[in-house]
Amino acid sequence: MIITNSIDDTRKQIAAARRAGKTIGFVPTMGALHEGHFSLIRAARQKCDFVVVSIFVNPTQFGPAEDLDKYPRTFSQDCQGCSLNGADMVFAPDSQVMYPDENLTWVNVENITDRLCGASRPGHFRGVTTVVTKLFNIVQPDIACFGQKDAQQVSVIETMVRQLNMPVTIIRCPIVREPDGLAMSSRNRYLEPAERQQALCLRLALDKAAELFAAGCTEAATLITAMENVIRQYPLARIDYIAIVDDQLLCPIEKIETQTLIALAVFIGKTRLIDNTTLTPPYGPYAHAGETCQWRQLR
Amino acid sequence: MIITNSIDDTRKQIAAARRAGKTIGFVPTMGALHEGHFSLIRAARQKCDFVVVSIFVNPTQFGPAEDLDKYPRTFSQDCQGCSLNGADMVFAPDSQVMYPDENLTWVNVENITDRLCGASRPGHFRGVTTVVTKLFNIVQPDIACFGQKDAQQVSVIETMVRQLNMPVTIIRCPIVREPDGLAMSSRNRYLEPAERQQALCLRLALDKAAELFAAGCTEAATLITAMENVIRQYPLARIDYIAIVDDQLLCPIEKIETQTLIALAVFIGKTRLIDNTTLTPPYGPYAHAGETCQWRQLR
Repeated sequence: MIITNSIDDTRKQIAAARRAGKTIGFVPTMGALHEGHFSLIRAARQKCDFVVVSIFVNPTQFGPAEDLDKYPRTFSQDCQGCSLNGADMVFAPDSQVMYPDENLTWVNVENITDRLCGASRPGHFRGVTTVVTKLFNIVQPDIACFGQKDAQQVSVIETMVRQLNMPVTIIRCPIVREPDGLAMSSRNRYLEPAERQQALCLRLALDKAAELFAAGCTEAATLITAMENVIRQYPLARIDYIAIVDDQLLCPIEKIETQTLIALAVFIGKTRLIDNTTLTPPYGPYAHAGETCQWRQLR
Repeated sequence: MIITNSIDDTRKQIAAARRAGKTIGFVPTMGALHEGHFSLIRAARQKCDFVVVSIFVNPTQFGPAEDLDKYPRTFSQDCQGCSLNGADMVFAPDSQVMYPDENLTWVNVENITDRLCGASRPGHFRGVTTVVTKLFNIVQPDIACFGQKDAQQVSVIETMVRQLNMPVTIIRCPIVREPDGLAMSSRNRYLEPAERQQALCLRLALDKAAELFAAGCTEAATLITAMENVIRQYPLARIDYIAIVDDQLLCPIEKIETQTLIALAVFIGKTRLIDNTTLTPPYGPYAHAGETCQWRQLR
């Protein structure tokens, strides 16, 4: 597996793969890789001949009070995992390579970034869309894989790619969970043992909403209250948001009538975790629970 | 010469040229082509095997009170001119092709767009950088040619390309002028005969500044006053701005000590015209006038 740090080297390696007739798959990451990332690498591997993983903790997507400095860096294990899961190349630039001078140029997706995580983390998505644009321009992949765990991020990137006519296909890959149901996240390693246990409340709240929905409840307010009640049982948990929104522009809805995203962010101690599930009607009160609920398929 | 209207067709044609081993040159325009545009096409022709010209009057770069509706459309003459000057393809999408839904995604270059034309035309450059990003992603050219007449536009696009790592080389081509010195512009055709005569004041004001500079004057305030005095002699002219700025971030300077842009925008009647020149020190009071002034080279 090739490891590059400079943009020129990266371009040269990819140009060589292109000349050899290979298609390019891309998985942008911030490192601290886990099974969720590895599933993205395997998805890219299945579809493309040459798989590039970027590892870059992007400063422009962290707020001033966020965890940029303590974000986990595990580079050598990351490279091992990339190699084992079929990556051909890791591009690991430092900040000076990605932002050599004061950055004045931003890609911004409006509206859809104002809600959910965007409301809690102003500027976050502008940093994400800007760095992903830069990485796409460096790697010029045919496909790029993103995880559904960051559901809003994928929607924002899909909108950006479509509206800026970027020549890349975005692949949305399912959430990967720990055996007990906690969505995998690089930030899980911040959790103390007691926090790790209580972190399960995100998944249990989504469970509750899916159960009620399968039993016929389509009122967003009712589902949100039920989720809040689940989370209130966990003293280390503090809700950032619980949102029931349409699948496209992520606008809050009152009644679930089309494909709908339930997303939440919860602080467990000082660690902010997110999770989500998608509910797909038609399910009236008489539909069979479980069989048709997409969330069940993620188990 | 091929003419395309859809993005898919455009991509297919360009992919075929790529497969044939051709390099791609690109000239984005809003049509109403004149000798200035043709010089860009010829520059692309010299450097590349396959030259694409886009003709698209981009609504997102016009302000609500600006001339979008009356902007000149001369499509068949434009195509003839493209063909005569060596273009292989014209991409002429309509607005529905370029903006099929409400556009939420914007590329914005901060700071450098706040001044000069950016101050007079809020949102203008955001529209330019967004549409140019879209066109670059559709055409994926090796080089793209822009005219120095829109000096701020080229600086903004160079900054965008560099900071977003776009895989394209920007070629800055010199201003093309009418025999009497008026910078060529699609908007010149708005001018009534009396206005056309008085439109020469932009060039004459730049002349005056270059003369004073060549004679040793490096004080921006003095040069600007002299330029204002030239333009005041023309009753149909109303100054929008006169700016003496550094060549990189376009910040106002007091004394010309490095390569410097003098740019101005002047309304002639209702038509807003722009022009500029670049002055390159070192010229003290004792330097030889004329020989070393870049502006002279543009004649």
